[in-house]
Amino acid sequence: MSTTAQIGVTGLAVMGRNLARNFARNGYTVAVHNRTASRTHALVEEFGGEGDFVTAETAKEFVAALERPRRLVIMVKAGGPTDAVIEEFAPLLEPGDMIIDGGNAHFADTRRRERELRERGIHFVGTGISGGEEGALNGPSIMPGGSTESYDSLGPMLEKISAKASDGAPCVTHVGPDGAGHFVKMVHNGIEYADMQLIGEAYQLLRDVAGYSPARIAEIFRTWNTGRLDSYLIEITAEVLAHVDAATGKPFVDVVQDRAEQKGTGRWTVQIALDLGVPVSGIAEAVFARSLSGHMALREASRGLAGPQAAPLGEAEAAAFADRVEQALYASKIVSYTQGFHEIAAGGEEYGWDIDPGAVASIWRGGCIIRAAFLDRIRAAYDARPELPSLLADEAFAREIAAAQDDWREVLAAAVRQGVPTPGFAAALAYYDALRAERLPAALTQGQRDYFGAHTYRRTDREGSYHTLWGGDRSEVPA
Amino acid sequence: MSTTAQIGVTGLAVMGRNLARNFARNGYTVAVHNRTASRTHALVEEFGGEGDFVTAETAKEFVAALERPRRLVIMVKAGGPTDAVIEEFAPLLEPGDMIIDGGNAHFADTRRRERELRERGIHFVGTGISGGEEGALNGPSIMPGGSTESYDSLGPMLEKISAKASDGAPCVTHVGPDGAGHFVKMVHNGIEYADMQLIGEAYQLLRDVAGYSPARIAEIFRTWNTGRLDSYLIEITAEVLAHVDAATGKPFVDVVQDRAEQKGTGRWTVQIALDLGVPVSGIAEAVFARSLSGHMALREASRGLAGPQAAPLGEAEAAAFADRVEQALYASKIVSYTQGFHEIAAGGEEYGWDIDPGAVASIWRGGCIIRAAFLDRIRAAYDARPELPSLLADEAFAREIAAAQDDWREVLAAAVRQGVPTPGFAAALAYYDALRAERLPAALTQGQRDYFGAHTYRRTDREGSYHTLWGGDRSEVPA
Repeated sequence: MSTTAQIGVTGLAVMGRNLARNFARNGYTVAVHNRTASRTHALVEEFGGEGDFVTAETAKEFVAALERPRRLVIMVKAGGPTDAVIEEFAPLLEPGDMIIDGGNAHFADTRRRERELRERGIHFVGTGISGGEEGALNGPSIMPGGSTESYDSLGPMLEKISAKASDGAPCVTHVGPDGAGHFVKMVHNGIEYADMQLIGEAYQLLRDVAGYSPARIAEIFRTWNTGRLDSYLIEITAEVLAHVDAATGKPFVDVVQDRAEQKGTGRWTVQIALDLGVPVSGIAEAVFARSLSGHMALREASRGLAGPQAAPLGEAEAAAFADRVEQALYASKIVSYTQGFHEIAAGGEEYGWDIDPGAVASIWRGGCIIRAAFLDRIRAAYDARPELPSLLADEAFAREIAAAQDDWREVLAAAVRQGVPTPGFAAALAYYDALRAERLPAALTQGQRDYFGAHTYRRTDREGSYHTLWGGDRSEVPA
Repeated sequence: MSTTAQIGVTGLAVMGRNLARNFARNGYTVAVHNRTASRTHALVEEFGGEGDFVTAETAKEFVAALERPRRLVIMVKAGGPTDAVIEEFAPLLEPGDMIIDGGNAHFADTRRRERELRERGIHFVGTGISGGEEGALNGPSIMPGGSTESYDSLGPMLEKISAKASDGAPCVTHVGPDGAGHFVKMVHNGIEYADMQLIGEAYQLLRDVAGYSPARIAEIFRTWNTGRLDSYLIEITAEVLAHVDAATGKPFVDVVQDRAEQKGTGRWTVQIALDLGVPVSGIAEAVFARSLSGHMALREASRGLAGPQAAPLGEAEAAAFADRVEQALYASKIVSYTQGFHEIAAGGEEYGWDIDPGAVASIWRGGCIIRAAFLDRIRAAYDARPELPSLLADEAFAREIAAAQDDWREVLAAAVRQGVPTPGFAAALAYYDALRAERLPAALTQGQRDYFGAHTYRRTDREGSYHTLWGGDRSEVPA
């Protein structure tokens, strides 16, 4: 048994296997280990020609195969299995060694594990990895947290295996300490939910209001993909919509059950945003839309509810409407990202992570599901003004929204009148209008709260908290 | 020291004090106790004439003053303080005694405490109490969880001190085991957030689109309060809007800072709904609207964003618009309650609580913040059909929404076009339209997920899960 492996991967399901192959293809000697050894051997039999692998049947062998300080990547299920694997390996490690968790852990778990392992001298590097199987093999977007010291050692390797943006920059950065990487990966997924929901609404509008076929809509998405909406999700939307089901000859999208599933990171994004006091209404509507779609009994019971039938437009109006939908989609997308980056800023502040939002935008430009030309714009906005309080405060985005907003409003008005559900578009516009409002009805809310619960209020014209004696003579008293 | 008190209250801040007085006024002998004894004596000095109080300076004295089985109400802060008080008293109690937690505990904490105390033979009765200070004194809406045995002993006393609905029914019911009471109280508060947000949006529309003054809007709310919207919140909205600030002579609502605060139960409602997979978009938008209002830097940075200025309507159009807003508000309110009762049903199922939704609606008819004539309607809907899958499936509500929906859509279209933020109205309508939709874009979502993550999909025409080989010949394989 040689001790020459620069990195080890344990957990060789498809993500782990592809990540191990990615390291090997990039010239690293990779120790590979799996609970059932047959999978380890199968990997080397099938892909051994791609690079240098060292197989290990036991945890001890695996650890012994790694050069020091050891870099040990665990690719197992989030939750209990991750803790179990850590407990298996940590006792075999030495101070300065690194455990890299590449799974979809909740950042709070990552913070706990990092703290516990730090006390034992081990670096725990919670690392978000986006891009699915294909990304793991050919270049994912990588979001490592953990110590600076661990990144000094790991960074160059991660840079090598990561996706590269169009300008050649590797899609990896040291996001911040402890759980910062998994936090940012969580928000990435929340934004992904919102992107997908907005695309779904655009599709539905083109289908019901413009009256277009899936094939025709696929063409429109292909065109959009050559413009400012250029992105992986728009690209694959066109592919999915163009696809024809072989068994029936119908558009594929029409034979798929309209019950969306989810795994949990979207939900986490909203739950954590609520804890942080960050409005992420677009992401929340996307999560709710998925869960609503799965409540078949409820949908069944609601089928007969009154509402308009969308009456498809004529050819010329339809084309104009499609252009408007692009504006609405783009404007709503800006809002989704505004909300997501607000959550990243708030998380960074809450946990002292000092996250560089421009760097986050930069590493999402390649490898991950939400990769898009758009992210170059976000990076530019933060590079120009690192203290940007909100993406909407960026002049270029503000200008684009200003240009898009008439169409955005018209599309939404049409959806509302014709009964096409557009929760994502609507939440985005309401957020935009609320942020720019001179006055919000929150003043009335405060008045109500003071009335029924003596919760007090602040005044616009002087400092301090006040309470009105609503049950008495309605005079005001300092609180 | 006599041992004749039928109930004891420890924690004599305003809620605890008023609850103790309520018991005493209803003929019960009440043992009172507080960490600092001065508050105990102050209570008896000031209100001793209202009934029979037994003061206790120590925990031992307090427990000794109670007849057995003991009924001990704790009215302290949720979280750590509640655990501390439980740990102080539990060792002094005997099997069969009851601890009633009347604070705003998270139902998960209540479940834990109930389990721990059950093992020690003590009944723990997590109890939601709504109605604020005034309700605690004169009759709150009471939502007790815990064992049936404890309710047999406590129920008659709670019925006596509770609010009475217009038909004389006491506003208390045994909601269900362990955390059911606090769960239902949480959802009550979530619905309260939504009600307040919808009222705020209606106000803003009347102000900006109809061009009405707060005094005029107060009149409109007074009128609404004589119809189907008859409720405590509409009533106090009229009071708040009619109020004139003495210092400035301006409408009170215009001198209050428009930054809404919150305490946490609204947030919990949304977080738990996400765990349960229940779409509560209206409640979520209400929580987000409050947090958004408090982000002053963000709002400041967004002030210059482009958007229309609402142009007030002429007199006749304004009156017609106000009627439409009533329709929109009422329809949106039905959706909020639909979502809230869905969460109650899902929570009941998840935790095996067997909650009677009609009984919940019934006890919210009096005493609590959301008390309303409307709740009689909800009770009737569930009484007529206990297995109602959704409030929207009730014929009467469906008919009312059918009648309201044209106006609802027109109000929302006007808001969208004129730039008045109406996240609650919009979320409610999108939920309605999504539920009644024949097909949702969730099918596209599933196609995308299968494309980038091989997450598989189901077909409309046969059983099983499938995957399309997107990267290959695009044939379909069973998964």
